[in-house]
This record gives sequence, C-alpha cells and structure tokens, in this order.
Amino acid sequence: MSTTPHIVLFGAGKSATVLIDFLLDITAREGWQCTVADHDKGLVERKLAAAPHAHAVGLDIRDAAARMALVAAADVVISLMPPALHFLLAQDCLKAGKHLLTASYVDEQIRAMKKDVEAAGLLFLCEMGLDPGIDHMSAMQLVHRIRRTGGIITGFRSHCGGLVAPESDTNPWHYKISWNPRNVVLAGKQGAVYRERGQTQKTAYTKLFAEAGQVYIPQLGQLAFYPNRDSLAYIPVYDMADADTFVRTTLRYPDFCSGWNQLVQWQLTDETIRYQTDGLTGESFLKKHLAHHQIPFPAINELLQKQLLSLGLLGDCPLPDGEHSAADILQYLLETRLPLQATDQDMVVMLHEIDYTLEDQQHSINSSLVVKGRDALHTAMAQTVGLPLGIAAVLLLRNQLPVRGLHIPILPEIYAPVLQWLENVGIRFEEYGDL
Amino acid sequence: MSTTPHIVLFGAGKSATVLIDFLLDITAREGWQCTVADHDKGLVERKLAAAPHAHAVGLDIRDAAARMALVAAADVVISLMPPALHFLLAQDCLKAGKHLLTASYVDEQIRAMKKDVEAAGLLFLCEMGLDPGIDHMSAMQLVHRIRRTGGIITGFRSHCGGLVAPESDTNPWHYKISWNPRNVVLAGKQGAVYRERGQTQKTAYTKLFAEAGQVYIPQLGQLAFYPNRDSLAYIPVYDMADADTFVRTTLRYPDFCSGWNQLVQWQLTDETIRYQTDGLTGESFLKKHLAHHQIPFPAINELLQKQLLSLGLLGDCPLPDGEHSAADILQYLLETRLPLQATDQDMVVMLHEIDYTLEDQQHSINSSLVVKGRDALHTAMAQTVGLPLGIAAVLLLRNQLPVRGLHIPILPEIYAPVLQWLENVGIRFEEYGDL
Repeated sequence: MSTTPHIVLFGAGKSATVLIDFLLDITAREGWQCTVADHDKGLVERKLAAAPHAHAVGLDIRDAAARMALVAAADVVISLMPPALHFLLAQDCLKAGKHLLTASYVDEQIRAMKKDVEAAGLLFLCEMGLDPGIDHMSAMQLVHRIRRTGGIITGFRSHCGGLVAPESDTNPWHYKISWNPRNVVLAGKQGAVYRERGQTQKTAYTKLFAEAGQVYIPQLGQLAFYPNRDSLAYIPVYDMADADTFVRTTLRYPDFCSGWNQLVQWQLTDETIRYQTDGLTGESFLKKHLAHHQIPFPAINELLQKQLLSLGLLGDCPLPDGEHSAADILQYLLETRLPLQATDQDMVVMLHEIDYTLEDQQHSINSSLVVKGRDALHTAMAQTVGLPLGIAAVLLLRNQLPVRGLHIPILPEIYAPVLQWLENVGIRFEEYGDL
Repeated sequence: MSTTPHIVLFGAGKSATVLIDFLLDITAREGWQCTVADHDKGLVERKLAAAPHAHAVGLDIRDAAARMALVAAADVVISLMPPALHFLLAQDCLKAGKHLLTASYVDEQIRAMKKDVEAAGLLFLCEMGLDPGIDHMSAMQLVHRIRRTGGIITGFRSHCGGLVAPESDTNPWHYKISWNPRNVVLAGKQGAVYRERGQTQKTAYTKLFAEAGQVYIPQLGQLAFYPNRDSLAYIPVYDMADADTFVRTTLRYPDFCSGWNQLVQWQLTDETIRYQTDGLTGESFLKKHLAHHQIPFPAINELLQKQLLSLGLLGDCPLPDGEHSAADILQYLLETRLPLQATDQDMVVMLHEIDYTLEDQQHSINSSLVVKGRDALHTAMAQTVGLPLGIAAVLLLRNQLPVRGLHIPILPEIYAPVLQWLENVGIRFEEYGDL
C-alpha cells in the first residue's frame, strides 16, 4: 500500500451518486485519496463538486494503459462498470496487486481467477451491492444464527425488489424507473429455475409474470414476486442441499405483474423484429405490432386500459422516428412515461422467509427490509447498492476485513461489520417469527 | 410520541449543512419525518432540495405561536439557533414534553430548568457539538478508562481549534474563516481562568495571545494554544478536584497568535469607538486608529508585514463606507480577505493531554483528533458540530439513549454509542502514551 490510502472508483452513473458522496466524506475525514473515473469526465466533475482531495478522470475503459495507470495508483478498486467490463479491471487488479470490489454477479471469467487471487493475497469481493449483496449478507446472518441453535433449514425464499414508495406511487403500474430501464424490459427473459417442495421447477418466460406468487410485507401489504433466473446455483453457496424449497425472487406490486404479463404475452419485449416507427403513436404501434404477430387486438379490462394509457400504448403518445424493436419502444415509453421525478421517493424491499426444524419441530422466521429513497438522486437503490461497496472499501483500508481470495459476502467476517454499519445508518431488517 | 417519529431542526445556517444532509438521509431510510425551520425559508428550501419527506418552514423565532406549533409536532427538537435563543425553544419543549438537543453551552436560564426537565421525563442534551461536545465525550471516555484501572488524574489539558488544512493554507495567518467571523474577532476578550500546578491562573485579554503555549500534534507539527475563558467551571463537571493542572484551550497556528497579539495590542478588536470610514483604505484606517489611541505607527517585522498586507491593513484595500468600530473593520477584512474558498479544506484539531498516577507512578497519555473538511460547504467544522447532534437525535428516537434530565455528554450511556458512530465514519482519535 502507498502511504496515503487511495480508493479508485470506476463508473459514475446513476448508481454511483450515493457511493461517491460517501467516499468523498470519509476519505476527506480519513485523509485518504479518492479518484473517480468515467467515460464522461464532466459528469464526474459535477459529482465531485468542489472536493479538492478527489480526482475526476475521463477514461475510455478500453484504453488498457490509462486503465492500468489508475489501478496501479489505487489501494482498493471499486467497479460500478457494466458487468461485462469488470473482467478488464479484474485482470489489471491481479497484475498490479490491488483489491477489487463489485456489485455484480461473479461470472465465469472472474471465477477462473480464484486461485490467482488467493495466491496474490488479494480480496476480490463481488456481489457486494443490494441484490446481489445485502440479500446474501442478511440471509446468511440469519441462517448462521439458526444453525448455531441446531436448526436445519428446510425452506428458503428470498425476495427483493426496487419499487416506488407508496408516497410517490402515482400510476396504475405502481412502478417508476429508478434503474437501468433496459433491465426492466428484459427482466425474466431466460425464465427461471428453482426448487419447490423437493422438486426442481422450471418456469418459462411466458409464464413467469402470470404465475407470480404473493407475499405480505408488514407495514406495506401484499406484493407479488416472480422467481429469478437461476436460484439453484445458490443452493451449494448457501450450503442448503437439505432445503426442500429454495428460491430467490423479484418483488413487484401485484398490478405490475398482471399488466406486464399482458405485455409479455403480446411479445412487446421482443428485441428481434424492428419496425419503422416514423409518425407512429404508441397506440398505432401497438396495433401494427399485434397485427404483425397475428394477435387480434384484445379485449382490455379497466386496469389494463389504465396501464396502457399511462404507458402511452393507448392514446396519441408520439414515438421517436427510426427503426426500433418492440423492446426499444417499451424502454422508451418506460423512460419517458414512468420516470422517477425529482421529488419522488423510490423504495427497496427485501424479505427472507426461512423454515427450519429444531428438535423435530417446524419453525418459521421472516426478516424484512424496507428502505425509502431521499429523492430521485439519493435513491434507495443507489444507497443500498453503493453503501455496502463503500463500507467494504473503508473496512479493507482500515484492516478490518481480514479475508482474502475471491468472495461474495456470505462470511461473518464480511457481513457482520457491514450489516452493523448499515443498521446504524437506518438500513435495518425487522424480524418476525420464532428464533 | 406520534406514530411517525419527527425531528425538527431550528436553524439552517452554515453549521447546519452537514446535519441537514445527515437527517434527510436517515429520516428517509427510517420512514421518519424531518422539518427544518429558519428565518430564511429560501435557504432551507435550497438545502432540503428535492427531499419530499422533509418540510421547509420559514419562521420568525420570536413568533411564539408558530414556534410552539413546530415544537408540538416534533419528537426531538434540535436547536442550532444563536445561543441566546435556545431558551425560547427550551421553554416550549418543556411545555410540550419534547426532547431538546443543542451544541451550545448550558447557560443559567437552561440550568434553572434542570428539575423541571427531570420531572417531565425529558432529555435536554446540551454542549453536543464539537467544542463543547466531542471534547467532553472523548475526554470523559479516556478519563473513565484511566479511572477503571485505578489511575488518578493529576493533569488535564484539552485543546481544540478550527483551522485551515495544510493543503489549503495559503496566507501568512494560516487561518481562514469557516465559522462566525464575529466570534473570531471577539475571541478571548474576557481573558481566561484555569488551574496550573495547583494554582488558579488568570490571564488578561492583552496577555492571552502573547503568552500562547505550544503543543505538538502528530502528523501536523507544532500548534499554539491560548486558554479558554473559564476552565475552572469544568473541574467539578469532570470530577477533577484532585488535578493540579486543568485547562481547556483554543488551538491556532503559532504565527496566528503572534500576529493576532499585535492586533490586540493595537486595540483593533475594540467595539466601542466608531470611525467614519468613507474613502478610507485598510492602511489609512490603521494609521487613523493608531493615532486616535496615541500609539506610534510601529516598526513591523517581515512576518507581520505579510500578515497586515494579506489582511488589507497595509496597502490600498478599500473599506466600506459608514460608521464602523475597529472590530467591525477587522471582521470585514477577515470575511473578505481570508475566506474559505469553495475548494478549500478546513480542519478541526483536538488534543487531550492527561497525566495520571497509578501505583505511585506518573503516566501520561495523549489523544488527538484531526478531521479535514470535504470542501467549503461540507466543512470539518459543520461535520463535527452537526453529526453528534444528528446521531444523538437518531439514538434517542431508537430508544438507544436511556438518559433523561438536563445533561452534557459526559455519561458513558451518551458518549459510548456516539463516539463509536463517529469513529465508524472516520472521526477517530489517535492515542499515544501509556495506558
């Protein structure tokens, strides 16, 4: 390590706002250095504002020399780049001997570096955001507590969603865009696989939203959920081979799932067929699209009519000119018709439902988190993704994260101090049930 | 308490910036309410920005009905009003049964409410900023640790100053205005009283800066200090009747004290005599003022010449027209010639020097804090004054501050969780010496 600890963050987009603020504050107090690099240097400069101890860097992430120069100057690298680009930074970090933190899933390329990361005595901590991130930490803390009493986990359902807070819920989708809208459009496309009552269940994309389940969140009410792509991969990670039920899901308001199911049935999330949209309205596009797929223009109930009107798929909402797929149009409409407004509050909701046996008795415990954003800039999403990364970087530089190798945050050495910190700042789970 | 916990902050000035940010974040996450009242409603609105769960209120603090309506709606009241106005809020809080937090010294009016506050089961927590505030907490934590080992305190010196960080130190005063400039002008006017080697020492204002002592701060070097107004009052509060030496001081860079001493000797901090300053420059004002006091224009060494030039007391710096005292002029020059610029970092420094005997052996331990600001908005001063108040409010609403009555933060129930929180966010003391 250099004499002045130095955190280098790659990526200054929407998800980075809260993390940058956190890093600017704490590095100033600690007398550390902070560098933020993004392809949009002006964006970084605006986010760093006047902080003189922080450096704004404009960077083409494909420029290997420039990238390596930044990594070499760091003690800890945080990547908020698109997932496919983490590997570039991971290679640099391994070469330069630097720790790496990301909020993304461990992919095959990163997984292949496991032994090298260990041998180099580095920490590569991935899946350290909200979901994945806080979900792992909070679930494992609860599971480890149950196991310490002698309990055996028989059922595990973990739900998480980025929603709009009830106070700012002003449309019949009960949803606003606080995150990458492309991800919303494409969500669920690969279908889902999970375990239910001892059986592996596969759900096709076309059934995902139709078959959404429901859960009750205290102080919030009923929410719907649909299973995430591959829950099974986490059964060995969580050491839950004995669990009859194991599923990780995405939470939405129930009306969202019913409406979105209709859009999926109408193939409006299709990326393959492109239409000339010059002069089209949302409604004329919808008719053209349905005609193309030989779907008769359907009967529409009152809720769906409201939803289609609010999204601009009914009425005279103009579309951009050019060649666009239905998914492009849907993304455009989500961005323009359902944006999180400056004074809106988003909301992150998480719920773990855990069944376990102890001394031949069945028990259940639920643990839930509800975090509301401060405004459209300081969203609950940006807070819950950014703060775990920032806290981990600080703990690492303070030598309070004594773990090396490639990890996700399922070890007590990682989750205990991070969850404690989050709890202090108001990101706290409520438990109900018996333990 | 109402169903939704509600924090009401009175005062949105410079010192409130960091506290407001802290409160907006945490009340959003907790689902609490936050109201900020100030005579300048536009200022509050700008500081609250888009946060929809927070309320900006324009308030004339002398309007008893409006004030009481705000207090009645609160669960915790924080006052960052000028000290003389706390009493108005304290009376309201007592009447309405609300907790009160301030960063100011307990005055006679507040002290007289002690029994009523206790009887009402309320917490009035004063002196909960930096100095007073963090100084009490950190000193008492260390003192209580020493006493638990059986040590007896024989000497206690506690130093604190708001300075400019070395990185932003660009003038021969090594000082910039990050705080109320009037307080800088009038600092020390009442002289000082403290205990040194068993004797009560009184230092007159005219000797205060001339007789400044020096201490060494690790990683920073030598700083000068002059004793605060009345240290003796804290001997019983800290339970240190046995200490031969007991003094609380203000830290400055040594050159500041030598230069400021010259200004004091020249009576430039006088508030009583007013001059017509139309058309005057700083230098012609200085000559007029010295002539008025029959002080011959002095020989000036190289350092002092640089200091007078930078402050505008030499050279052709124009002064505002009108009738002004020397103190007014000095305040004007400090504000206009030595401002903390947008990208400057200020710095808060604290040092406790404690001597104690243990098993007939003399021991010494020092504990120091250096906090640098993020920029001229997020100053170290605003952080260290605001965060203890904010943290205390949060702990109180979480029922984690089980103390009632009129207090300053010298009890472990108060200082332990607050210092732990501050340490987490990088406001941390370093110790050296034997314990």
